[in-house]
Amino acid sequence: MGRGTRGACRATGVARNANIAKLQAGYLFPEIAKRRNAHQEANPDARVISLGIGDTTEPIPAVITDAMAGAAKGLNTLEGYSGYGAEQGKPDLRAGLCEAFYKGVMEPDEIFVSDGSKCDISRLQMMLGPGRSVAVQDPSYPAYVDSSVITGQTGEFDEASGQFDDIVYMTCRPENNFFPDLANTPRTDIIFFCNPNNPTGACATREQLQELVDFALKNGSIVVYDAAYAIFIEDDVPLTIFDIPGAKDCCIETCSFSKYAGFTGVRLGWTVVPKQLKFADGSPVIADFNRIMTTCFNGASNVAQAGGLACVKPGGMEGMMSLVNYYKDNCKLIRQTFVDMGFEVHGGTNAPYVWVGFDGRASWDVFAEILEKCDLVTTPGSGFGPGGEGFVRVSAFGHREDVEEACQRLQKIYGGK
Amino acid sequence: MGRGTRGACRATGVARNANIAKLQAGYLFPEIAKRRNAHQEANPDARVISLGIGDTTEPIPAVITDAMAGAAKGLNTLEGYSGYGAEQGKPDLRAGLCEAFYKGVMEPDEIFVSDGSKCDISRLQMMLGPGRSVAVQDPSYPAYVDSSVITGQTGEFDEASGQFDDIVYMTCRPENNFFPDLANTPRTDIIFFCNPNNPTGACATREQLQELVDFALKNGSIVVYDAAYAIFIEDDVPLTIFDIPGAKDCCIETCSFSKYAGFTGVRLGWTVVPKQLKFADGSPVIADFNRIMTTCFNGASNVAQAGGLACVKPGGMEGMMSLVNYYKDNCKLIRQTFVDMGFEVHGGTNAPYVWVGFDGRASWDVFAEILEKCDLVTTPGSGFGPGGEGFVRVSAFGHREDVEEACQRLQKIYGGK
Repeated sequence: MGRGTRGACRATGVARNANIAKLQAGYLFPEIAKRRNAHQEANPDARVISLGIGDTTEPIPAVITDAMAGAAKGLNTLEGYSGYGAEQGKPDLRAGLCEAFYKGVMEPDEIFVSDGSKCDISRLQMMLGPGRSVAVQDPSYPAYVDSSVITGQTGEFDEASGQFDDIVYMTCRPENNFFPDLANTPRTDIIFFCNPNNPTGACATREQLQELVDFALKNGSIVVYDAAYAIFIEDDVPLTIFDIPGAKDCCIETCSFSKYAGFTGVRLGWTVVPKQLKFADGSPVIADFNRIMTTCFNGASNVAQAGGLACVKPGGMEGMMSLVNYYKDNCKLIRQTFVDMGFEVHGGTNAPYVWVGFDGRASWDVFAEILEKCDLVTTPGSGFGPGGEGFVRVSAFGHREDVEEACQRLQKIYGGK
Repeated sequence: MGRGTRGACRATGVARNANIAKLQAGYLFPEIAKRRNAHQEANPDARVISLGIGDTTEPIPAVITDAMAGAAKGLNTLEGYSGYGAEQGKPDLRAGLCEAFYKGVMEPDEIFVSDGSKCDISRLQMMLGPGRSVAVQDPSYPAYVDSSVITGQTGEFDEASGQFDDIVYMTCRPENNFFPDLANTPRTDIIFFCNPNNPTGACATREQLQELVDFALKNGSIVVYDAAYAIFIEDDVPLTIFDIPGAKDCCIETCSFSKYAGFTGVRLGWTVVPKQLKFADGSPVIADFNRIMTTCFNGASNVAQAGGLACVKPGGMEGMMSLVNYYKDNCKLIRQTFVDMGFEVHGGTNAPYVWVGFDGRASWDVFAEILEKCDLVTTPGSGFGPGGEGFVRVSAFGHREDVEEACQRLQKIYGGK
């Protein structure tokens, strides 16, 4: 009898969480990684390029990494050592984020520093509890739907529609210029809204955002506004939802250094909860989110926070913009390649994603074909919801030479379209 | 009309999570911080010493911080840059943890690297979903009860008993040598068990752990075994629950570098889920925990993971042990001080906490008295549950000179006992 084992294996009497059983297959990105690996194994000599998951590739500017290295080194000294920090984040970082992104709009103590938006979305779900009604853009970042399913906001998965029951899917397609038809959208407690949008790359205008806020106010909904790509915005539209009148009464904003500063691996983000945002009983949402952050979280890494603080200082802001502009140049290349080949192309201007239509062909088929013929990983549009069917997302996160080669490979296969 | 505001403030129509409304006051440690700050404000010249929250104070050995600084610097280079990592942790760290702490017992892919045990406990709750019955040691680390309340495992708070309805509180007091009377404990789905125990410092023997495992197997329960202080064990008892026959069929273990390597601020922990652990329907628990980790989490910081990897290599292991021994020496001082003064003293041998009885006086009164008379922060035992009433926890995490001074101050006030 080995250690840790006594007699035959047996099941416990603990019931499985029925909500998790509802989830289909794996989470999208691990699924793509699996397929990529299978392709690589079958084709060991292929140099596979990934413009799939949206993972940053370029080094972080030295002014930021030096700050992190300094903080790490400091942990070896009495003066530089720090243990538990405030679960809500270091006060100077909260103040710096406020100054950099919410000056004159929000207060530092409305900003909660975290290990990233994906994690904050689940913590927001824990705060809300089960049984809240939810609306999402369709297509959208899978974490909104998946975390809603896990938390118990939804019914079962419907194979026919490819959707979960009891979620409102707000279709965002070329036909409606990627902005939902709110006049015909039923009320929900929560509206997840990602702007600029992942995966379509579309960016709502100021007027559209006002329409969204007015819709939420009218319905007494809370908008969870994901601004993870706001730094890529070129057009004259707000960088934060809190620039829209009324937003403080109906919005929570989540954002992250992942795409701002290449912190996908470093892990640092933040969520903004206005003090005046209230549940139906009049109690402040910020108090309950604070309780979740102090009970279910223990602060972002002090080293990562030192990096974040460097990001929001003058040299760091310039460093972030140089990274952003590098990816924006990639994006132009990708966009132009598909435009030149005569494809239906969206996004890629205010966001690092190009959304390419393939004449209504099934997304996973196109994904497989591009992987097979070009040794190139993209993301199938339908992985973001049925509204993404017929499209693939091409990410601008990659080394320039890889993006250039990917474009050449695509031209070779699809140039005669 | 200011930005973000439109007309009068108004509540949304989103119902507040009734489970959060059940929670009493604040989370224990922020509450203590508040009282400490109030004392400091009222006594601006006092040099307040904290042996309260259990926060590490000593610098991290250079072999570990150098690895983190190197990883941070590396993020500025093409070779050293890394973006999204596996949500479950870097493969070499999972292998290193397995080699260091679970050799021959568990496999690397049963170990999930995270940003800490407190966070993992909430993720385990998300995995379990609401409506699971829960048992906790009383007293115990507040996150077990609080996360259970938030997730919906409990009834309302009962003012008279100081307990939540529908939680089984397993009393651990000197009368039962701090090990629960399992023969008279009702079955629950989940048993939170911290060993060595926070706050009492008690450590169960091998026989007691076998009794716990057999109890869980008999009842079909899952034990969430918190081994955060295992490295402090001196006695001949197992360092992991998976050394106990049967444990792989009924246990999950969570652990952390917080107290091992002074990573309270760096944030790095892990949770071990055996492949053979099964829900009642026969489905593997590890699959659902993996789904939670990939959907609700995005990996621990790559810089922190570089530190963790250094920890489990030979030089790092020695560095960790030197830290542990430093705090153990503190603990001896504190323990002896109270013993010499004739107090009822428990713990402090296999754990960095000394559990001191004050003749049945209310814990918060004693806490306030020690803060007032000694400018010393402790933790009131009842903050860990009604079973802690009459005791205070004194933490061994502090600079030696502070611990020495704290002991002198205590002797001055309580030496004539």
